[in-house]
Amino acid sequence: MTALTDDPRLARVALSCLVEPGHRALGQLVDAHGPIEALIRVLRGDVDDSLAGAVEARRLESKGDFVGLAERALEATERLGARIVTPEDDEWPAQVGDLRRISRESESRLDRDTYPPVCVWLRGSAPLDAVAHRSVAIVGARASTPYGNHIAMEFGYGLAERGWSVISGGAYGIDAQAHRGALSPGGTTIAVLACGIDRTYPNAHAALFERITEDGLLLSEWPPGADPHQHRFLIRNRVIAALTRGTLVVEASARSGAKQTASRTRALGRALMAVPGPITSAMSVGTHFILREMQGRAVTSVNEVVEEVGRIGDDLAPIPRGPERPRDSLDEALAQVLDGIPLRRNADPQQIAAAAGVSLRAVLRALPLLRDGGFAVEDNGAWRLGPRARARK
Amino acid sequence: MTALTDDPRLARVALSCLVEPGHRALGQLVDAHGPIEALIRVLRGDVDDSLAGAVEARRLESKGDFVGLAERALEATERLGARIVTPEDDEWPAQVGDLRRISRESESRLDRDTYPPVCVWLRGSAPLDAVAHRSVAIVGARASTPYGNHIAMEFGYGLAERGWSVISGGAYGIDAQAHRGALSPGGTTIAVLACGIDRTYPNAHAALFERITEDGLLLSEWPPGADPHQHRFLIRNRVIAALTRGTLVVEASARSGAKQTASRTRALGRALMAVPGPITSAMSVGTHFILREMQGRAVTSVNEVVEEVGRIGDDLAPIPRGPERPRDSLDEALAQVLDGIPLRRNADPQQIAAAAGVSLRAVLRALPLLRDGGFAVEDNGAWRLGPRARARK
Repeated sequence: MTALTDDPRLARVALSCLVEPGHRALGQLVDAHGPIEALIRVLRGDVDDSLAGAVEARRLESKGDFVGLAERALEATERLGARIVTPEDDEWPAQVGDLRRISRESESRLDRDTYPPVCVWLRGSAPLDAVAHRSVAIVGARASTPYGNHIAMEFGYGLAERGWSVISGGAYGIDAQAHRGALSPGGTTIAVLACGIDRTYPNAHAALFERITEDGLLLSEWPPGADPHQHRFLIRNRVIAALTRGTLVVEASARSGAKQTASRTRALGRALMAVPGPITSAMSVGTHFILREMQGRAVTSVNEVVEEVGRIGDDLAPIPRGPERPRDSLDEALAQVLDGIPLRRNADPQQIAAAAGVSLRAVLRALPLLRDGGFAVEDNGAWRLGPRARARK
Repeated sequence: MTALTDDPRLARVALSCLVEPGHRALGQLVDAHGPIEALIRVLRGDVDDSLAGAVEARRLESKGDFVGLAERALEATERLGARIVTPEDDEWPAQVGDLRRISRESESRLDRDTYPPVCVWLRGSAPLDAVAHRSVAIVGARASTPYGNHIAMEFGYGLAERGWSVISGGAYGIDAQAHRGALSPGGTTIAVLACGIDRTYPNAHAALFERITEDGLLLSEWPPGADPHQHRFLIRNRVIAALTRGTLVVEASARSGAKQTASRTRALGRALMAVPGPITSAMSVGTHFILREMQGRAVTSVNEVVEEVGRIGDDLAPIPRGPERPRDSLDEALAQVLDGIPLRRNADPQQIAAAAGVSLRAVLRALPLLRDGGFAVEDNGAWRLGPRARARK
């Protein structure tokens, strides 16, 4: 048991294996005492009834071999070429911490157990925090119409082209179109899964997930091997809402899970947007509900989406960032140019100006300064992010 | 000149012939001194420069024969089987008085000259105030799509079926479909024209206007013979917004006149609603603008429209009513049943219950009381409105 109780990372993996994500009592225990002490108390049964009950079955199943449980998860992760990111890592996206507020203020089980992830599994080499820093969620119906498919693709493409990452759930229909749209101009996308990152669900998305792994990230709170249980999709939705600056619902039926992502988005104070559609379409009933009853903003173009999510720091509250980063020291003009430099490919100054929405002159002035500060790297007239742009300290 | 300066009605007709509707200086003069004194001052040239300028051309043209001008308008009205309604008449819809507020608060010429009508011309025998009492405006694009046509017809039908009058502008496209929809279940509709009520504009609507005259009203602020000048449509729009409890825009292009009706609706504090459509349709650009930028409510069903406009007296301010009416003495339950009795045809108790949205039992209890009070008339088990339901005193 030494390994488990010495290594906070291993403790988090063990906790992820033992308890379904989002559990408030567990999250509060980890917040109060750290993951190692939390795990010790869970192992001892020295926790509140709800948490003891949640852990019980898996304790019995593992026959007390928690080291083995965690180590097997680590081995599987390594075999997959995947990695684990925890709140102790620089790469951790601090904004998911906002989920504590929903969890604290809620009484129903579904809303209460919305605590931030204990850790996440990732496939793909892009740095999670940088990808999520300027991101928009595009979600919607699996049984989408050609109208919705067209729009999800267009908006995914347009956002990626403007330097925004697109985050979705990897499902059929709107999700898949949004991922594909973001990938096609060389953009970055994250699929937040409701099962282990080794599970290709749905199966037909094997090629899509492969491409996402190359240019973006597959992300899951569940250890490798976890099945895509129905309730996990709902638990997962809070992460999509919390990672991004706003959620765009493209099509949704009356009883769509996208409405739940929308309600998390609203509760987090992030921008909630929906694409109107024909009122004669069953797949627009949910989006119109979001417009009518959830104060969602109707958006009809990519520019309108950028207008909604780009306001951070202007009249919306900034996303909490956790510890200071080097980039926080940059003045506004430099930071804006930095936002226009793509994460994973080279761009020329004209492309950077377009993505950042500033003049070419401003970009040409900023780039040498960003290079000297270690924020940008030049390569034959093309630019990409430098090491300090990704570092936390 | 005796006739003109003795009869406020004749004075209003003369003023309508001399000055385009909505003129603030004229409206304020009439408010302050009454129509007769206002006309005397206009004839004398004893008015502010803007008003003197507005009258000048027509003074010259009429060679000072204002009696002739007004009398010719009256004769034409009579020949048409039409009538004139003025604020001195019981039938006057007091809610148009709200337009004074827009006019008072505005500086630009277009917004300033939004005063209530001096009088209106009507064709059709339905009582204007009763028809407008429970009314919704449905407006939109002339170059509407099959989607918009379908919806305008459906909503016109559904509102009429629920006992609401439908008010629109008599134009091609959305307007015509809304009128047709309202007429088909035997409902009442008003076409508010931007020309004399004898002018069939557009020409293709001759049969439609004939039907509207039978079951509803053609209404105009212009004397018979007036041409449908372009700017008159914009002046006219304020009356559509002011007569009704709310305006529903079904389809509108980016530069549609419906957006102006919407902005009048908003300025009047009436319910502003728009029907979402495909964001790929040019005819939904204007409706989405209303949703995004004008705080319009997205509506997707007739019930949602009724929910918006039915709130009067609940959380929206009541429409000012002018003098007390007999019906104001009824308690809420009786008033609600009374609202369900159709204006111009007989209905059985079941139909009245459906229109009023109350139980059949409540209707059967209320009807004898309403009959005894003179509010309802029974005819072989069917009911229609009684004389006191229409009277003002």
